[in-house]
Amino acid sequence: MLSITHTDGAARTGTLSLPRGDIRTPAFMPVGTAGTVKAMMPESVREAGADILLGNTYHLMLRPGAERVAKLGGLHKFMAWERPILTDSGGFQVMSLAKLRKLSEDGVRFRSHIDGSEHFLSPERAMEIQRLLGSDIQMVLDECPAFPATKADIETSLALTTRWAKRSKNAFGEQPGHLCFGIVQGGVFADLRRRSAEALIEIGFDGYAVGGLAVGEPQAAMFETLDAVVPHLPMDQPRYLMGVGKPDDIAGAVLRGIDMFDCVIPTRSGRNAQAFTRSGTVNLRNARHAEDAGPLDPECRCPACTRFSRAYLHHTVKANEIIAAMLLTWHNLTYYQDLMAGLRAAIAQGRLAAAAAEVAAAYARDEAVAPG
Amino acid sequence: MLSITHTDGAARTGTLSLPRGDIRTPAFMPVGTAGTVKAMMPESVREAGADILLGNTYHLMLRPGAERVAKLGGLHKFMAWERPILTDSGGFQVMSLAKLRKLSEDGVRFRSHIDGSEHFLSPERAMEIQRLLGSDIQMVLDECPAFPATKADIETSLALTTRWAKRSKNAFGEQPGHLCFGIVQGGVFADLRRRSAEALIEIGFDGYAVGGLAVGEPQAAMFETLDAVVPHLPMDQPRYLMGVGKPDDIAGAVLRGIDMFDCVIPTRSGRNAQAFTRSGTVNLRNARHAEDAGPLDPECRCPACTRFSRAYLHHTVKANEIIAAMLLTWHNLTYYQDLMAGLRAAIAQGRLAAAAAEVAAAYARDEAVAPG
Repeated sequence: MLSITHTDGAARTGTLSLPRGDIRTPAFMPVGTAGTVKAMMPESVREAGADILLGNTYHLMLRPGAERVAKLGGLHKFMAWERPILTDSGGFQVMSLAKLRKLSEDGVRFRSHIDGSEHFLSPERAMEIQRLLGSDIQMVLDECPAFPATKADIETSLALTTRWAKRSKNAFGEQPGHLCFGIVQGGVFADLRRRSAEALIEIGFDGYAVGGLAVGEPQAAMFETLDAVVPHLPMDQPRYLMGVGKPDDIAGAVLRGIDMFDCVIPTRSGRNAQAFTRSGTVNLRNARHAEDAGPLDPECRCPACTRFSRAYLHHTVKANEIIAAMLLTWHNLTYYQDLMAGLRAAIAQGRLAAAAAEVAAAYARDEAVAPG
Repeated sequence: MLSITHTDGAARTGTLSLPRGDIRTPAFMPVGTAGTVKAMMPESVREAGADILLGNTYHLMLRPGAERVAKLGGLHKFMAWERPILTDSGGFQVMSLAKLRKLSEDGVRFRSHIDGSEHFLSPERAMEIQRLLGSDIQMVLDECPAFPATKADIETSLALTTRWAKRSKNAFGEQPGHLCFGIVQGGVFADLRRRSAEALIEIGFDGYAVGGLAVGEPQAAMFETLDAVVPHLPMDQPRYLMGVGKPDDIAGAVLRGIDMFDCVIPTRSGRNAQAFTRSGTVNLRNARHAEDAGPLDPECRCPACTRFSRAYLHHTVKANEIIAAMLLTWHNLTYYQDLMAGLRAAIAQGRLAAAAAEVAAAYARDEAVAPG
């Protein structure tokens, strides 16, 4: 299903083909947490360039509920997105959002952050929910220890995650046209990561995610972990770095052989007046934009950049107008998709290192100055 | 400029032609208070059927400021809406929103509701602001007494409003391609309304608005006032009922010869889960929609109705997702524009009374039952 057309060092570009559509890799998946990519019409998400979305099992199981979505014809129909959807297993968000969670060998019991109601998530239930949603790529339930953690804690957690991966795969069963991905854990410990990868490969998955990163560790630690993990993953299957990241995180991970990403940064930042551009981040709340008739990013093709001025974006941000969230989300998703298209082209042309360095430089400059 | 093609009793349909585009009358103008029709892209407002928008002088003078908008190329360019814009004079909102307003013969001094800063609005400044914005239809500054008021209060207010109308017209001057409308005041007193209309006609305007209605009086009082005013307005010039209204208010006013309307109801209701449909209002927050796979309004052509279910709208309302505001605003504006198109067609076919009665019946039914 993954057809690799070009490689450049550890990086690869190609197409992951699914019945609902092709995914050009490396791919960025916008996050549609609760059945909507916030502030975006689904056709605008597609126009921005997305081939696949991510949906959150934790949010959807609580509201509107997996059985209800199934009764209404599945998540694609519900949210008017006919292309592929990847769902997470809910594990990460149960650990970070839910109240009063209680972990056992069987699964995790928790209370909803919405209404305090009690719920239970096991590997079997996580896979059942994802099947009810109609997810194209389903993720195993894993346990995600917080960073930093001791090696002993990570090792204990990893053992449970591996047992859960096996149960998840069994529960996934046979679903023609749908994929099941394992999740490599092991913190920043290379030997644990390798052990995790090998155990998952022995179970056998359609793709392999790297989990437990982008949880507060420095970028260098993330890259080192990728360097330790990726060589142990199958060449011919997709590799997905969960929850990553900023543009320079993505460029560095593509260099290291990652094929898929998801992150709330472009959408969340868009709702907070923060824009990603070819020359770093721009804070539209800043008064210096108030009389700027120029575009946010002169090279961008999105409506925020082609039809409105920085002055308009600044005004609507200050006035708390919904169109500010709409336009800046649209812009950020377009920037992210164009970033991925640029990285794919660079791999095909054997110049990824230079392209990735350019992204890193734009965002390094950015960190050196106050948000603008 | 107003070309009337058909009449049906007191009602008329035709086209008001302006350099920036034709306005099919009777027309509904969506409200773009602060340079945006809330939660809508401008092209979606157009797709819904709008020929003209309304902008609020009070909001725009405070933020981003009329001189700033002028420097940025005018309001049309600023908000990416190239068709006609009507601006109010700011009077109504100064009276209802601003703090510490102090009225004199010269104008009104007030404090901004945003930051408490002090501002002054006179007939001359109101017209200057509207010219700086580049407004196609500019409204005179009037004084708007609250309802209910004594006849003596209304009479005093009307005298000032009439003097201000003359100053406004003088300040408007000559602006080829731009129109200046007077505003008939006089509360619910037929003799004062008539006196107001005659005084304005003597000054001479490009169109006549009826102000001071939809401020809490019963619908019957509004209709009686229109019956008293409209016969005194010129046949060949546009008539605009300000701030009205619900669908049955509009249908009744069209029957009485009104050509133009504006109201925040469709947009504000859309952000509050309230939808207007051919069979009355629907509250999408209501749990009875949670598993309803059917469309909000099966006869509606908007994206909310053609691509999503009531269950999806309910879910996104409950989850406070921005797409709920986007879709329900889009739907309500589409309903309002289709309502106007239906009334225009009914006038052309000489069956307006039946069409208006149908609208009134849908919304009378609606008031008889709990919102649902």
